[in-house]
Amino acid sequence: MLGEVHKKVLELLMRSEGFVSSSRIASELSISKASVSRVVKELVSYGFVIEVNPKLGYRVEVVDDVRHVSKVLKNMNIHYLDICTSTQDIADMLASQGAPEGTVVICEEMSYGRGRLGRKWVAGRGGLWFTIVLKPKMIKSLQLLTLIAGTSVVKTLKELYNLDVSVKWPNDVLLSGRKLCGVLIEARLEADRVNYVLVGVGVNVNNELPEELRGTGVTLMEVLGCRVPRVPILKGVVSNLLNLYNELLRGNDDVVISEWKRYNSTIGRKVKVVSFNEVFEGIAVDVGVDGSLIVSTGGSVRRVSVGDVVHLS
Amino acid sequence: MLGEVHKKVLELLMRSEGFVSSSRIASELSISKASVSRVVKELVSYGFVIEVNPKLGYRVEVVDDVRHVSKVLKNMNIHYLDICTSTQDIADMLASQGAPEGTVVICEEMSYGRGRLGRKWVAGRGGLWFTIVLKPKMIKSLQLLTLIAGTSVVKTLKELYNLDVSVKWPNDVLLSGRKLCGVLIEARLEADRVNYVLVGVGVNVNNELPEELRGTGVTLMEVLGCRVPRVPILKGVVSNLLNLYNELLRGNDDVVISEWKRYNSTIGRKVKVVSFNEVFEGIAVDVGVDGSLIVSTGGSVRRVSVGDVVHLS
Repeated sequence: MLGEVHKKVLELLMRSEGFVSSSRIASELSISKASVSRVVKELVSYGFVIEVNPKLGYRVEVVDDVRHVSKVLKNMNIHYLDICTSTQDIADMLASQGAPEGTVVICEEMSYGRGRLGRKWVAGRGGLWFTIVLKPKMIKSLQLLTLIAGTSVVKTLKELYNLDVSVKWPNDVLLSGRKLCGVLIEARLEADRVNYVLVGVGVNVNNELPEELRGTGVTLMEVLGCRVPRVPILKGVVSNLLNLYNELLRGNDDVVISEWKRYNSTIGRKVKVVSFNEVFEGIAVDVGVDGSLIVSTGGSVRRVSVGDVVHLS
Repeated sequence: MLGEVHKKVLELLMRSEGFVSSSRIASELSISKASVSRVVKELVSYGFVIEVNPKLGYRVEVVDDVRHVSKVLKNMNIHYLDICTSTQDIADMLASQGAPEGTVVICEEMSYGRGRLGRKWVAGRGGLWFTIVLKPKMIKSLQLLTLIAGTSVVKTLKELYNLDVSVKWPNDVLLSGRKLCGVLIEARLEADRVNYVLVGVGVNVNNELPEELRGTGVTLMEVLGCRVPRVPILKGVVSNLLNLYNELLRGNDDVVISEWKRYNSTIGRKVKVVSFNEVFEGIAVDVGVDGSLIVSTGGSVRRVSVGDVVHLS
């Protein structure tokens, strides 16, 4: 988790167009120049791309940081593309050809981004669009993997920017009731074996939202009031996700469920459930061991594992 | 089910290289020429491609019947290819582009045929290699779908040729302990939705088995002593499979399980189970409601849903 000083240095850098001198940072925050240097190094370890100029000072890369992703996150197997149909498609191809677990495909723009249930996902420049390949030998429930993805994004955004984000069942990330991030989990299975799972994550960062999504969607740039680097978010999400995934592999489903519960805003809410063959309302009371949402409709308790949930209150 | 007269007419036609006159059939079977004509029409309705020549009589197509498949099975959505990597690959592409449920891809030869667990499947000319696309909205267990596939092949081969075939858990079809047919079920899922399932079926019919498979594999041509038409098998398997699939969709899992049990040769057997992380032996005692194999190891009862089973006795 970023400390207070780190956040202040980061804010200063993010809100400046160009370089900020070490002395200015030191004086504004009442810390030594040595401390500034140390804090900057620590920010770099979080994935921030920070340019250091002996004369001008420091500058954080907010526009093109993803282009440098392979150099910044050296220990990850990353495929960077300027544009593709969808990072899911590329990851699918790579995984079917033997790409290892943990492979990440990231791009600047998707021409055919897709969301859950075959919906379109608008993915213009400036957003964070990536897919992680997982190859679990067996999996009890894909639903639990879904919970992990949303949770990882929320944890990361809290760690980096202390944002009041929450996860809506199963995996949308909301900020002030608007959608900041969506997750698409796709799996390729044989009857009795998981070949691979593709976890697609789309975070609205510095991208423009189309007119029709401005009411329901939100970007980080809107919320933070400046352009926001994407690589640290990628790094945090992948790291949080792999940690929770390893808990699942070790059979600690309860850890995953309790982490999801900690960050969710669905439980306790009045919800409308839109499943493929029915629509009903009720109170979301809990999440089952398989990740399904448990909804009390007054008369009965229903278990929801497919479909959309709308928060009504 | 083919009647006795139909089987006799069929046998006569299959064992002849060229045409067989109506009078010869009528006299050999002691039936009228009108009966011969009726029986031939009924055989055609099973998918046999029978050429009728007013002078020469009847001839059943055994070499090239699959080439005529679209004409013979007019009400099916069939894609016929001479050669492809695998019918699973083509069906995958078609299904992802919106091909409807029930679409069948069939080919004469696969250059990269694959079996379960990423194994190679040798698929030379003369065999029956096809994939059916299913698009269930939800599915309780892919394992149950697997049981359906093997069962459908066994039922069809019993109906057409009264062969002593059986299904080995989960879906290999055996004849005298040798493998006649394999099934590969692959699914494309979102976390909470089945996009589509590809049921791949490979039946050794008139194909040459490679040297190394001659001990463990068997072809229909070997068993029946003549070249065997493939279209009637395709038609029967698809029809039996869709019937059982509809039972599953209606929630009649018990019908599927009892049909599988009726044709299986695994229950009651001493078996060796080879799963991804262990090997153990026991007696196969039953199949669970999810299609898993229940194995008694003496000390305990184990539920097997992943892996291979070897019949030991």
